Amino acid sequence: MNLLTFENSVFRWYAIAAAIMIVKMMSQGWITVFRMIKVNGGFRYPEDARKGPANPRPRPDQLLPDEYVQRSRRMHENDTENIPLFLVAGLIYVCTVPGLLLAASLFSTYVLSRLAHFFVVLMALPHELRATSWTIGSVIIYFMAAAIVWDVLKY
Amino acid sequence: MNLLTFENSVFRWYAIAAAIMIVKMMSQGWITVFRMIKVNGGFRYPEDARKGPANPRPRPDQLLPDEYVQRSRRMHENDTENIPLFLVAGLIYVCTVPGLLLAASLFSTYVLSRLAHFFVVLMALPHELRATSWTIGSVIIYFMAAAIVWDVLKY
Amino acid sequence: MNLLTFENSVFRWYAIAAAIMIVKMMSQGWITVFRMIKVNGGFRYPEDARKGPANPRPRPDQLLPDEYVQRSRRMHENDTENIPLFLVAGLIYVCTVPGLLLAASLFSTYVLSRLAHFFVVLMALPHELRATSWTIGSVIIYFMAAAIVWDVLKY
Repeated sequence: MNLLTFENSVFRWYAIAAAIMIVKMMSQGWITVFRMIKVNGGFRYPEDARKGPANPRPRPDQLLPDEYVQRSRRMHENDTENIPLFLVAGLIYVCTVPGLLLAASLFSTYVLSRLAHFFVVLMALPHELRATSWTIGSVIIYFMAAAIVWDVLKY
Repeated sequence: MNLLTFENSVFRWYAIAAAIMIVKMMSQGWITVFRMIKVNGGFRYPEDARKGPANPRPRPDQLLPDEYVQRSRRMHENDTENIPLFLVAGLIYVCTVPGLLLAASLFSTYVLSRLAHFFVVLMALPHELRATSWTIGSVIIYFMAAAIVWDVLKY
Repeated sequence: MNLLTFENSVFRWYAIAAAIMIVKMMSQGWITVFRMIKVNGGFRYPEDARKGPANPRPRPDQLLPDEYVQRSRRMHENDTENIPLFLVAGLIYVCTVPGLLLAASLFSTYVLSRLAHFFVVLMALPHELRATSWTIGSVIIYFMAAAIVWDVLKY
């Protein structure tokens, strides 16, 4: 049976969740760009502090770290540590033929937990909220990995 | 022929290896959390040094880099540079219909090389051991990429 | 219909593009290694500045950041933020049964945009060229994500 096809409704749910996470992570790069433009600094490449169309009046302090820009870079780093794992774990999890209700709940809860994490870090809300949203996503990834191992071992 | 299904024993080996790598990389985040709690510092978000349930007695030096915590962050960064490549290269490699013995050897050697790398960095063992374990994983990824290209080109 | 097989020419194009991107990202690690050897510094692990076969004459300043090495690390970080998204978005995009001409154009343009990005950063060319090459890859990922969502919703 072919499971990795849009004829499979579990895979359709996975594909939507994956597309949202891909757009989210890609957009974090644009948020960093937006913030560097806004503060006109926080650059990391020496060539960015040279005179040019995008930087008509360069200053040496444009290469100093800027907390407003660094926050977006840390959010991006957190994405790189988490989202690729969801993308692949979710894909293989589809092959365990989970029930639609369970799979759709896991995929959508994961997406919501990451969007909550994004909002919490963006707003610099208390640490406890960031830890909670990250933990929910983490538990879902562990659950899918365990389901994969379980399904293969009982095969 | 459908290869990305648990009916295919090569894919079952891939799924187990992928699940172990996903759990490994996800757990590195928890190791960083554990180390931050243990040294009560090494934080990176200003809001983490504010008073709250998780930080009843905040100190400004909690935001300074801490080598014990940084080591776990570097291990995590190394995972982000390597494990997603294995997860996708391995998946496409299954489509080249490799022999079971070869595929199972590659997948399990990769997993062992990464677990060795984890142990070597955790214990701060000599550089030569870290380089060796990383190189083994790297060669396996190159091999799978070459096998994919070769298989497509001869199609 | 099984789309994730080399019998599908769109998947063959995807597999070649994915293999090239995997080799590119894996090789960035080797470039960092090469640069650390060349400047005999830019290390990050305290144990790397200890005496050993790979470091017969250690110096404490080997642990200071070196811009030549850091540039390769930032290139690697940029890869981790972009390439895994392409690898998974491209795979799911194959399931939308795109026309071969469109799919092959997207995959090859993405690869070329990333190779251009690599060359531009390696040579420290003006910021505008780096921004342009990154933007092209980014737009392709957004396009594939949108095509996935569109295809699932109309299902």
